Amino acid sequence: MDFTHLDEKGNAIMVDVSGKEPTHRRAVAIGRISMSERCFSAVKEGGVQKGDVLSVARVAGIMATKRTAELIPLCHVLNLTKCAVEFAFDEGTREIEAQCTVCCDGKTGVEMEALTGATIALLTIYDMCKALDKRMIISQVHLLEKQGGKSGDFTFGG
Amino acid sequence: MDFTHLDEKGNAIMVDVSGKEPTHRRAVAIGRISMSERCFSAVKEGGVQKGDVLSVARVAGIMATKRTAELIPLCHVLNLTKCAVEFAFDEGTREIEAQCTVCCDGKTGVEMEALTGATIALLTIYDMCKALDKRMIISQVHLLEKQGGKSGDFTFGG
Amino acid sequence: MDFTHLDEKGNAIMVDVSGKEPTHRRAVAIGRISMSERCFSAVKEGGVQKGDVLSVARVAGIMATKRTAELIPLCHVLNLTKCAVEFAFDEGTREIEAQCTVCCDGKTGVEMEALTGATIALLTIYDMCKALDKRMIISQVHLLEKQGGKSGDFTFGG
Amino acid sequence: MDFTHLDEKGNAIMVDVSGKEPTHRRAVAIGRISMSERCFSAVKEGGVQKGDVLSVARVAGIMATKRTAELIPLCHVLNLTKCAVEFAFDEGTREIEAQCTVCCDGKTGVEMEALTGATIALLTIYDMCKALDKRMIISQVHLLEKQGGKSGDFTFGG
Amino acid sequence: MDFTHLDEKGNAIMVDVSGKEPTHRRAVAIGRISMSERCFSAVKEGGVQKGDVLSVARVAGIMATKRTAELIPLCHVLNLTKCAVEFAFDEGTREIEAQCTVCCDGKTGVEMEALTGATIALLTIYDMCKALDKRMIISQVHLLEKQGGKSGDFTFGG
Amino acid sequence: MDFTHLDEKGNAIMVDVSGKEPTHRRAVAIGRISMSERCFSAVKEGGVQKGDVLSVARVAGIMATKRTAELIPLCHVLNLTKCAVEFAFDEGTREIEAQCTVCCDGKTGVEMEALTGATIALLTIYDMCKALDKRMIISQVHLLEKQGGKSGDFTFGG
Repeated sequence: MDFTHLDEKGNAIMVDVSGKEPTHRRAVAIGRISMSERCFSAVKEGGVQKGDVLSVARVAGIMATKRTAELIPLCHVLNLTKCAVEFAFDEGTREIEAQCTVCCDGKTGVEMEALTGATIALLTIYDMCKALDKRMIISQVHLLEKQGGKSGDFTFGG
Repeated sequence: MDFTHLDEKGNAIMVDVSGKEPTHRRAVAIGRISMSERCFSAVKEGGVQKGDVLSVARVAGIMATKRTAELIPLCHVLNLTKCAVEFAFDEGTREIEAQCTVCCDGKTGVEMEALTGATIALLTIYDMCKALDKRMIISQVHLLEKQGGKSGDFTFGG
Repeated sequence: MDFTHLDEKGNAIMVDVSGKEPTHRRAVAIGRISMSERCFSAVKEGGVQKGDVLSVARVAGIMATKRTAELIPLCHVLNLTKCAVEFAFDEGTREIEAQCTVCCDGKTGVEMEALTGATIALLTIYDMCKALDKRMIISQVHLLEKQGGKSGDFTFGG
Repeated sequence: MDFTHLDEKGNAIMVDVSGKEPTHRRAVAIGRISMSERCFSAVKEGGVQKGDVLSVARVAGIMATKRTAELIPLCHVLNLTKCAVEFAFDEGTREIEAQCTVCCDGKTGVEMEALTGATIALLTIYDMCKALDKRMIISQVHLLEKQGGKSGDFTFGG
Repeated sequence: MDFTHLDEKGNAIMVDVSGKEPTHRRAVAIGRISMSERCFSAVKEGGVQKGDVLSVARVAGIMATKRTAELIPLCHVLNLTKCAVEFAFDEGTREIEAQCTVCCDGKTGVEMEALTGATIALLTIYDMCKALDKRMIISQVHLLEKQGGKSGDFTFGG
Repeated sequence: MDFTHLDEKGNAIMVDVSGKEPTHRRAVAIGRISMSERCFSAVKEGGVQKGDVLSVARVAGIMATKRTAELIPLCHVLNLTKCAVEFAFDEGTREIEAQCTVCCDGKTGVEMEALTGATIALLTIYDMCKALDKRMIISQVHLLEKQGGKSGDFTFGG
């Protein structure tokens, strides 16, 4: 059983993908942030009328996907061909869900880009709401699905 | 009820902290990543012998705290005076917990820096382990405590 | 007559401000982008209903102010204490005006931060509208006013 | 009439270019900065003897083109294959013109890279001259021409 | 005799590689840092038991290779396909040698990436050891070999 | 004997400087690059007539000092108050020496900033000359002197 990011001596490396053919890659990651009812309502109403909390979080998420390789030490630099961040309100749990979809024609997958985009979008919501609620919790951050690449397609629930 | 990051028209702003006195600030954030037993054991054994997965994740988390203001759009740039990232293995749940502690002598708090450090550390673990397990989940990311600043001290369980 | 950014041999330097006392600084910069009537209307209607073109441009402008010292080679790194970007529609000229206000308690002024914020906001409008109109022109980018620092207050029209 | 950077709900997205073939792209952008006679002469003489104001501005412009996707939220990351920044002195108007030429073999155009390069070069001139003249004005920033891509060639005056 | 990074007027340019075919590139750079016996022993023992000084330096070197084009003004942005940093202890001279290997499928070579990775790894060792020894010296930083590209293969001793 | 950048368990940390008083700090670092006679002459003549190789290297060095904390994992972010990079030609050895001086009013020293500035300036010379000479060697990179801070003044030869 091997960590691909460690060489035979256990040292960190950026994996060699030189020989691989570029293929179309796609990954979708999601995550959630829970908050007080008061805070949830404020974002939601804002979301309808002014849109700014989620609009800022969306921009932050998109921009973060482009900088993933600067943040995650062993990630390859990739030229993303698409990025979108969407939000959904879960009334039952007072959670906002962020979903980030990323595409690329490259030699490695874009899972980390999608996860980074979703996470930074959620952290930005935290930042903009923290004056109202300091007990927000980010959870359920995971890879929902991915397509392309040697390891084939993946669906979280699959 | 106001979002401090929105002006009276609902537009995003970086809050004015010009008039505030710099005080000593401290924040601690934590989060967790769950993984398969096989993956958990591999990291843990690696953690004892070679240390590299967590060592890389620690460096990534520390470096990310310094770039928080580049990632979270309305965060102020702060000169952190301390940063540490620690990990703990939870055998019962097969989760690794990341805890990030950040200090600063400044005009705004360092909650976002601590949360960003913990989150990027967890994402780096994800990256290094994703060849073994694509169903890892990051959860329970929240502010554990903070000290300093006008709004006073905060403890999550308090 | 001296360029403060050149030493006696004409070489670029980052000016020594070590001896200066930090004071409160504020700068306001503005600039404009002209566009076709069709494009102007589309942004304006969007501005009322969805807000996204200007919302994205606002976030881009704010984030750019924080990275001014990475872009302008001889600028000092400053910890901004406030940043706001506002837009106005000029019906007569079909121009959108961007105004960027920046504050700081530091040893050098924030003129470049304000100018960079206004400019990147305008370039972001260009980017989002360029499928509709490639003949947009950015103009009238200048410092409107500044307060604080040894050289005293300044008003463009003064 | 559509903004390509907004989805059907008006949310910001990074446009999907996955299906597009990479083609050779080229864009040229220009802009100008006006200044006092005294300041204009100082730069111009400096330009002959020491070259440093324009030399620094040139480097700043070139470096900025490489970071366009970090500044303009919805821009794709592109691997530029050429970048040059040139300056011309307009004696009649006491303006310095900056022209930035950028090439790329990619799936999207390099208009924003050229515009960003020209703009940051002009802002750097502003920074280096602002001790002499705070009333400089940046204007006439626009796309001069572009080649390549589905939308075909473009010339500003065409 | 020409500098490829200067145009016919002596102005800095980012060389046009538009017409070139992407080929597989590889470069290896090395460098050394000398230190006191006390410091050398401390790193070496740490290297065996805890690994952290060299582990942090390795991560820093790898991350720096990805940002070479942000640091070296006229470098092209390249999507590296592999990066590894290795260290060796030279008992005789009390030096630590850092070797950085970088690969890419691109239009220009990766010499600067390899050199930047080796150098930042050495500077990170300096940073972590400077409380013990301020007289460390970095030396012998050079290109060991490169493969690929029009100018052919190169070996330093060849 | 302790590494200040490792905690008691050997894990990397950014040292806590919260309790320290800001004082004036200054550091000077130097380094050299050797090259073929042909290359040395070309830079030197260029240095007289056009100045561009060293001018670009100077800008690169200055800009790098501002980003030291992004490159060296455990460095604190500091607001530099001065930065200058100077070059000297050593005819006897055909080496160019780069000297970088950095100042700051802060809680930690600026040794790493000075070393990073000198090193990136030398790497930039390498980049601009590598078409003429691939056997250049960077050496003798060290701290020349520092003032300020608890550990007192330091001179390399002292």
